[in-house]
Amino acid sequence: MSTQLDRARAGEITPEMHRVAEKEGVDPELVRRGVAEGTVVILKNRVRRNCDPVGVGAGLRVKVSASVGLAGEGDTIAGEVEKVRAAVEAGTDAIMDLSTAGDMDGARRAVLAAATTPVGTLPVYQALVEAREKYGAAVKMQVEEMFAVIERQAAAGVDFLALHCATTWQTMRAAKKHRRVDYLVSHGGSHLMGWMIHNRRENPLYEHYDRLLAICRRYDVVLSLADGWRPGCLADSLDAAQVQELVVLGELVARARKHGVQVMVKGPGHVPLGHLRATVQLEKELCFGAPYFVFGPVVTDIAPGYDHITAAIGGALAARAGAEFLCYVTAAEHLGLPDVQQVREGVVAARIAAHAADVARDPRAARWDLEMSRARKALDWDRQIELALDSSRAAMMRRERSRGSHQACAMCGKYCAMQVVGQYLGKEQGVC
Amino acid sequence: MSTQLDRARAGEITPEMHRVAEKEGVDPELVRRGVAEGTVVILKNRVRRNCDPVGVGAGLRVKVSASVGLAGEGDTIAGEVEKVRAAVEAGTDAIMDLSTAGDMDGARRAVLAAATTPVGTLPVYQALVEAREKYGAAVKMQVEEMFAVIERQAAAGVDFLALHCATTWQTMRAAKKHRRVDYLVSHGGSHLMGWMIHNRRENPLYEHYDRLLAICRRYDVVLSLADGWRPGCLADSLDAAQVQELVVLGELVARARKHGVQVMVKGPGHVPLGHLRATVQLEKELCFGAPYFVFGPVVTDIAPGYDHITAAIGGALAARAGAEFLCYVTAAEHLGLPDVQQVREGVVAARIAAHAADVARDPRAARWDLEMSRARKALDWDRQIELALDSSRAAMMRRERSRGSHQACAMCGKYCAMQVVGQYLGKEQGVC
Repeated sequence: MSTQLDRARAGEITPEMHRVAEKEGVDPELVRRGVAEGTVVILKNRVRRNCDPVGVGAGLRVKVSASVGLAGEGDTIAGEVEKVRAAVEAGTDAIMDLSTAGDMDGARRAVLAAATTPVGTLPVYQALVEAREKYGAAVKMQVEEMFAVIERQAAAGVDFLALHCATTWQTMRAAKKHRRVDYLVSHGGSHLMGWMIHNRRENPLYEHYDRLLAICRRYDVVLSLADGWRPGCLADSLDAAQVQELVVLGELVARARKHGVQVMVKGPGHVPLGHLRATVQLEKELCFGAPYFVFGPVVTDIAPGYDHITAAIGGALAARAGAEFLCYVTAAEHLGLPDVQQVREGVVAARIAAHAADVARDPRAARWDLEMSRARKALDWDRQIELALDSSRAAMMRRERSRGSHQACAMCGKYCAMQVVGQYLGKEQGVC
Repeated sequence: MSTQLDRARAGEITPEMHRVAEKEGVDPELVRRGVAEGTVVILKNRVRRNCDPVGVGAGLRVKVSASVGLAGEGDTIAGEVEKVRAAVEAGTDAIMDLSTAGDMDGARRAVLAAATTPVGTLPVYQALVEAREKYGAAVKMQVEEMFAVIERQAAAGVDFLALHCATTWQTMRAAKKHRRVDYLVSHGGSHLMGWMIHNRRENPLYEHYDRLLAICRRYDVVLSLADGWRPGCLADSLDAAQVQELVVLGELVARARKHGVQVMVKGPGHVPLGHLRATVQLEKELCFGAPYFVFGPVVTDIAPGYDHITAAIGGALAARAGAEFLCYVTAAEHLGLPDVQQVREGVVAARIAAHAADVARDPRAARWDLEMSRARKALDWDRQIELALDSSRAAMMRRERSRGSHQACAMCGKYCAMQVVGQYLGKEQGVC
């Protein structure tokens, strides 16, 4: 069966491309060309029914993704579904189910049912957990079993799969030579490396990459090539391991495209302000313009409790520099797992970053800001609340905090300064 | 009496310059030269006793300021002092008392007593309010009375005075020709313009600028030249009125320096991501490198309720581009006045922006991040909490949200992946 990429190359504008173009307000031919060139991917598993396709890439709005998942005792599927609903309500473009414990098949089913957005997963988690249950050790995972889980998740309708295919021995040797401050922060990546070292084998996702591509083709799943050497602190940004892996990622992007598989690349993580442009530019060059899905990035390590803000700064800048997909970071990052409120705020912060960059990338994005500014000028509070990115929060804060601002006009007395100036500016001739 | 600027020019390193250099970890001669050239100002009124001097400008850490003040019925001096304490505890470098109602002398005294940081004010507010009380209309304010209030506030120990000296008829005509979406958002600026139009007179702060400079000299108050035409929405950024005023501001910077008065320039406001670099560069060129004190800037108009985040994005970028002083924006901006919690979060968000830029401006700033990264690597939670920009928030969220992350290690079973990889990376020879 042909993929969106095959069909785009053949000159066909698919219903999914039309739908993406409609939502973005762009020419469907622009979407088709982007998909054909690989600079745009469409997140939509062939077998999934309840998902509105989302386009990610050059020329389209910057998108955001929110992660949920069962992480241990106390987590429930209902609780994670509540987070999905909060994230979707807050306007996320995609959900990732990163469950690492409990009933992972059940959680995925529930997330896929609850989300109307594309859903991504990191299937190696489940393969490792099942191996631990079966053999008492995750490192005993069999390659066949891993591919069986990947196929199972793709068949379940997952729209994009995060896989650390480029975390090879070559990258491990680069990391060994070039000591890091914080050597590993990618959860999936570190488990895979543990497996590789324990079993003295190459990364099976790299070794059997064609097999993986065949699964992605079958379901038209977007391959999200993850970075096992994602730096975990500013000090490790753009080090040998990260850049070596990016070189391998580029090779894998080319191979995926050759096989008609849609592909995007995941990126850091922790990036100092001064590295953001280079980080994005490097991905664009080495990975032939593949959409860049960055995690934050957070621009400082010193603000646990506020990493939705450190990530909003990095996300805005990364997207301005060319990244097209922002994985949210919540206020709980580096401290624990987010609650529903933090999920919600994380999505809003990422959307702020995405929109700020959209305004710089495409003047049409600023129409929303212009509408808001006109509503402000007209003191039309209903319209301001309606236009607010988070209307319920804006309405609540307006109710709670507006007392003082209502009274500011008590300053003038007989003549309202604003009125005086407004009359002057509105007239054809000045008074002076 | 000579000012810091006079003495720097004479080659003297004053105790205030030594103190600033000590806090910044830089050579006192660097501070002296910056002050002499006008690229650094030292906030410290000659008569103020309880203020630790703060340096603002090139080569120094980016600073943040938090605004408080009585705005109407219901506001109390005690309530505003509580905000001052919260802001200082959260690490603000300066406080502005922007009271526009009530016992303004009393509020200022209380703020000056409570803050150990420099304090700024916008004296024209008080002059207008007193005129309203006396004549029934703020526009009846007499020039003599305005200067009396300015002198009174300087004599009370205020360290920097925000004054819209460049909001002249020339800038009003530019604004009239070039229609804005949201023509006025500067509160002080609009009142002054109302006065000018009503009285058909030039801006007295411009007309009698030398008199103002004499007051600033007397107390060594830093003149904070404010922008009455600060754009209030993305659409108005870098328009004729704003840029015309910046041209006049440059003229006034030169005149202040000639009179030995320390001077900085206030800036927007609402700035799209794509305008930030040009906005800062323009100020640096037109105002001869005077320190730039920006308000946010917010990078989108559409997120009321989250403007501490929109401002953190803009603040980080503006500071990276050369702005040295960030006026915080709270989550309540555009909706009402902030409560104590929002004041606190506003300061933290501005400090995150300042620090993210500091890392890009001076590699030494990243030492803090490096310490945090080492503590993370060592799983040393006490040290992480201690190093956190907001330790109490980090500690609270760790307590509340850490359940899941404790359990993540249940994934491996018999062999810990992190340990396996750590052993590999730590050894001289690889296993493969």
